[in-house]
Amino acid sequence: MGKSFSLMIHGGAGAFEQVRSDEDAVRYHDSIRTILDEGRKILARAGSALAAVETCAKLLEDDPLFNAGVGSVLNEDGKVEMDAAIMDGTNLEAGAVAGVYDLANPIQLARLVMARKEHVMLTGEGAMRFADECDLARSPPGRLITEGRLQQLQRARGVDRLALDHDAVDAPDDEAGTVGAAAWDVNGNLAAATSTGGVVGKRRGRVGDTPIIGAGVFADNETCAASATGYGEDIMRAVLCKSIADFVQLRGLTAAPAVRAGIDYFERRVNGRGGVIVVDRHGNCASGFTTGKMIHGWIERGGPSKSRF
Amino acid sequence: MGKSFSLMIHGGAGAFEQVRSDEDAVRYHDSIRTILDEGRKILARAGSALAAVETCAKLLEDDPLFNAGVGSVLNEDGKVEMDAAIMDGTNLEAGAVAGVYDLANPIQLARLVMARKEHVMLTGEGAMRFADECDLARSPPGRLITEGRLQQLQRARGVDRLALDHDAVDAPDDEAGTVGAAAWDVNGNLAAATSTGGVVGKRRGRVGDTPIIGAGVFADNETCAASATGYGEDIMRAVLCKSIADFVQLRGLTAAPAVRAGIDYFERRVNGRGGVIVVDRHGNCASGFTTGKMIHGWIERGGPSKSRF
Repeated sequence: MGKSFSLMIHGGAGAFEQVRSDEDAVRYHDSIRTILDEGRKILARAGSALAAVETCAKLLEDDPLFNAGVGSVLNEDGKVEMDAAIMDGTNLEAGAVAGVYDLANPIQLARLVMARKEHVMLTGEGAMRFADECDLARSPPGRLITEGRLQQLQRARGVDRLALDHDAVDAPDDEAGTVGAAAWDVNGNLAAATSTGGVVGKRRGRVGDTPIIGAGVFADNETCAASATGYGEDIMRAVLCKSIADFVQLRGLTAAPAVRAGIDYFERRVNGRGGVIVVDRHGNCASGFTTGKMIHGWIERGGPSKSRF
Repeated sequence: MGKSFSLMIHGGAGAFEQVRSDEDAVRYHDSIRTILDEGRKILARAGSALAAVETCAKLLEDDPLFNAGVGSVLNEDGKVEMDAAIMDGTNLEAGAVAGVYDLANPIQLARLVMARKEHVMLTGEGAMRFADECDLARSPPGRLITEGRLQQLQRARGVDRLALDHDAVDAPDDEAGTVGAAAWDVNGNLAAATSTGGVVGKRRGRVGDTPIIGAGVFADNETCAASATGYGEDIMRAVLCKSIADFVQLRGLTAAPAVRAGIDYFERRVNGRGGVIVVDRHGNCASGFTTGKMIHGWIERGGPSKSRF
């Protein structure tokens, strides 16, 4: 076990075609760097990987740049329905919620589901009932909806198709994606978290890869921690994060070749559109994506904070 | 590609402590054999693996012996909430529904979700809206609830704990479990399907492994078709079906050693309670379970129908 720590976070994969100016790009980089710094504080004082990924996911949810928490995209009914999941690589405990609303931080509810050790996944009204039971504060109705997302839904309805949240938008506020984090702490423990508002104009009740253990999130101390983003349906069909963990487990690969092998499978079998961040059990950081860009940042074994589209 | 075909089906894993008499056991064996025969007819006339698993899952849902469709267990509110999923190994297309009700055959709705090629997973009211859009007939309210399941819920409330559907019951009608099927057709294509009522007294909105691609169901022509049953939370955390497929893909194992390796991981990492049926891309059949029993049956490469607890 190292005395060091690693952390990766992402803010979505896609074309990010609207990030045309340096100013636009700087806003994303600044947010990613600021949130990495918060994660670093936790890990540097020997905090757990689990605490680091929960905190980073929460901060990413809080930033309206990204499609999670405030600034989530809207479904076919013009409503926010969010999904989130968290997993502890120590014992493979996990918590996931899908189709939740009026919560500023779905990742907190996912953590509470995990802590209860009763179920792994709660959805819709049942998940909201559990949130109330846990006295999780509700966000006032409409509080999570931004003007940019309302405009984006109108455009999506015009083209009558599903769009990744950063497609077909013309204001930088609309562009960001699903968020996620993966961490390796000084005790050698791994954890991962993912949170999203889903895809613009999605059917009510649609669940993507984000809250699916193995697809949008996975962590096992024996292999790696991973968080995915992109077209959820593609990621679910390829069970992307577990595929990558199995390349580590069964082929003995480190993070970078495991990501390449997982992305190869993802492209070959489902023509997958998306990306993933991975921290392996030795603290190696790697990312891969088949989309034009993926905004992400990392700290590898206590090194400097880096970010990249 | 063989000119032969293989088929496996299961009716749940658990203690089946109430199958005390030969008469009780015969009812399960008879149902499994009858349904295998229906699957055989489809595969023998060169029907697809997909058609075979959908038909077998539907027939298992229709039999009140099993915890899926009619005879599903009841949640904390005394209601039926069912989950189902189907996957085509040819192209990794998949369809899943969770928290659906008033439908005799959730597997049909999962198939329709897959056919629409829009989303992979729909839940709750959104899934029911899609069912209505597809003109899927609704079952009259209460039609899926059996007297035995009502009594079982009362007992579960008494002990105040989650119970696999076949625990703590004293009438044979209560005992069966999640259902599933995996098939290999004469064209070498694989498919799998799983359907369930979940666990007795579960929270509203709880989703188990059944509709989770990679956990309760997985099929890829390059590896195998698999369907799981047991404590959904354990199976989700281990992503059991994808774990087994990856032992085939990355270690070159056939069905039997892949099942052993997957079950080993399942026990070692999450102390998993459940079982799985697997048909690999060469038509080999294998099963494994950590529970006392799993009622299942199989036809290996066109051979005789067999069934076993």
